[in-house]
Amino acid sequence: MILLYTDFGTTGPYVGQMKAVLRRMAPDVPVVDVMHDAPVWNPRAAAYYLAALAQQSEAGDVWLCVVDPGVGGTRLPIILDCGGVSFVGPDNGLFEIINRRVPGARRKTIEWRPDSLSATFHGRDLFAPVAAWLACGEDVPGNGLDPSAERPGMDWPDDLAEIIYIDAYGNLITGIGGAALANGRSIRVGNNELQHAGTFSDVPEGALFWHRNSSGLIEIAANKARADEYLAVLPGDFVEIV
Amino acid sequence: MILLYTDFGTTGPYVGQMKAVLRRMAPDVPVVDVMHDAPVWNPRAAAYYLAALAQQSEAGDVWLCVVDPGVGGTRLPIILDCGGVSFVGPDNGLFEIINRRVPGARRKTIEWRPDSLSATFHGRDLFAPVAAWLACGEDVPGNGLDPSAERPGMDWPDDLAEIIYIDAYGNLITGIGGAALANGRSIRVGNNELQHAGTFSDVPEGALFWHRNSSGLIEIAANKARADEYLAVLPGDFVEIV
Amino acid sequence: MILLYTDFGTTGPYVGQMKAVLRRMAPDVPVVDVMHDAPVWNPRAAAYYLAALAQQSEAGDVWLCVVDPGVGGTRLPIILDCGGVSFVGPDNGLFEIINRRVPGARRKTIEWRPDSLSATFHGRDLFAPVAAWLACGEDVPGNGLDPSAERPGMDWPDDLAEIIYIDAYGNLITGIGGAALANGRSIRVGNNELQHAGTFSDVPEGALFWHRNSSGLIEIAANKARADEYLAVLPGDFVEIV
Repeated sequence: MILLYTDFGTTGPYVGQMKAVLRRMAPDVPVVDVMHDAPVWNPRAAAYYLAALAQQSEAGDVWLCVVDPGVGGTRLPIILDCGGVSFVGPDNGLFEIINRRVPGARRKTIEWRPDSLSATFHGRDLFAPVAAWLACGEDVPGNGLDPSAERPGMDWPDDLAEIIYIDAYGNLITGIGGAALANGRSIRVGNNELQHAGTFSDVPEGALFWHRNSSGLIEIAANKARADEYLAVLPGDFVEIV
Repeated sequence: MILLYTDFGTTGPYVGQMKAVLRRMAPDVPVVDVMHDAPVWNPRAAAYYLAALAQQSEAGDVWLCVVDPGVGGTRLPIILDCGGVSFVGPDNGLFEIINRRVPGARRKTIEWRPDSLSATFHGRDLFAPVAAWLACGEDVPGNGLDPSAERPGMDWPDDLAEIIYIDAYGNLITGIGGAALANGRSIRVGNNELQHAGTFSDVPEGALFWHRNSSGLIEIAANKARADEYLAVLPGDFVEIV
Repeated sequence: MILLYTDFGTTGPYVGQMKAVLRRMAPDVPVVDVMHDAPVWNPRAAAYYLAALAQQSEAGDVWLCVVDPGVGGTRLPIILDCGGVSFVGPDNGLFEIINRRVPGARRKTIEWRPDSLSATFHGRDLFAPVAAWLACGEDVPGNGLDPSAERPGMDWPDDLAEIIYIDAYGNLITGIGGAALANGRSIRVGNNELQHAGTFSDVPEGALFWHRNSSGLIEIAANKARADEYLAVLPGDFVEIV
């Protein structure tokens, strides 16, 4: 299965053009759009969400991931090989959180280049063909990178105490893993201090709480109400564990 | 074919995570996203639109439907069996309009539970596997519910004189079936009284009218203009047949 | 492969209903959503973007295209046959730019009608079945149209000096082909005169420039910033080559 994770948005032709390449080159491999509104131009926030979502991978999966504000610049195209599960995309930190969590994960460069490579759309021209080959079990030429060498994002924390995404219901997803926080702890957002609850229906309608969401991240939510509007927060805002 | 009808929105990872389950468990069954912006947290409005859309089902179809503000609470997970066409989702009235319209439709509970059931995402963890099994022709253990017993939504009207959805063009879709209204009747929205027309090009540009839309529901529209902006209405607003 | 290009938007049931028809009638043919937010009700702007996107077609491709404000009126349903690549949709100019650029392209009418044709949704009821047949290699009855006869949009320019689309990043896509403009030329938008750059990272952060985008069109963009907000422009605004 090829799983897509990009910041292309759900409008415009970019996702479709990339998928046309995948369907032509790997017609028998299912393609699933996991998310196309990953944090825009923000590989750091996107890295934490991707690491959470990718926990549900299975052997043979190829993740095609593009959050790539530096496209056309000097950043390398890479494959992160996690032993059965591969990640294809830019070497800008997007795979850093997975890299440090998965024992034996290895980065390698992609040395292949298409005959015609647009300056701005490596997702379609470079990453998609590579993902298609990997998903079909073919090898892609590249050079292994030294695991002890400098990596973009090496200085990022293991848990990111920040709102990395606001979903369609107004729930606030943080970059903090569910295991990082005991139920007795609170999270402060602005002047509000929120307690833990198991799920939405455990609190009164409109009440705010935090919980471990279905992807394993700490999430701030309200029962049948929009937490984002009540708290007036935006992606990138900090939260504080207290 | 598995047909998806949810209020997950077109952004975020929820649809993709659910589809990844379907593609893993039922790789040969086509999956079609019918709609992911069904009326949010509103099983009542969503029930009328679903009943209209589901009229184009064929034998073997499985509808995976999630408009489920009570997820994690006490509402049952059910299958509505309509003799060849199945509906999988929460027992909160979402299938009530179909249930009362299809002779011989039968509700049964879903007794299967996954090893790991998240509190907030039964669409992925519970309903998707069940839909995949049904689409593959497998049986899912459950208990038939007495058709004469109380059902959520039993008190809802057969036609809902309300705007249940506003589409991307600004057309206002009501919960009133096309057969409920003769062409000579008018619909009042606020201070406006609208007459019937066969289709858009039958009225002058900008003019408002009502018609039977392509899903069989009464719809209020304007020729090459946005009816929602002109009438300043929102989903949930009432309309009146006069 | 069937490629979809519509102005249905990414919400609502219309895309899904059309795809359900395609998957039922041509289950073995991949379907790719290229774009569902083509310029709304604007076959002219949509024609230039389609002509650019369709350059990446391969033999056997069928484009199912619906930007059709005149649905239900007198415009003909047609197939544009480009020798191996077909375009199915309304004869309102949507295929005009392709027609004049592809040698030997031929328009023919679609004479088939379904038993039940809704007044407002020919995409689902008429164009989708025709596209499915063509993609399966079947013939669809119709009458060839005289290439020298009057065509909707015949008076449109070969390059459209207008913003035809604004993408999710705020980039402004024009209807001007990349070959129409030498690198030394400037583009004026309002009071701003923009110079050429090869790609985003060639200019400072926030700086505006024009480039040839990945679909071959002239695009106005800013490095890690939204050109649309800085320039305060909308689709349909003119640009000037200076």
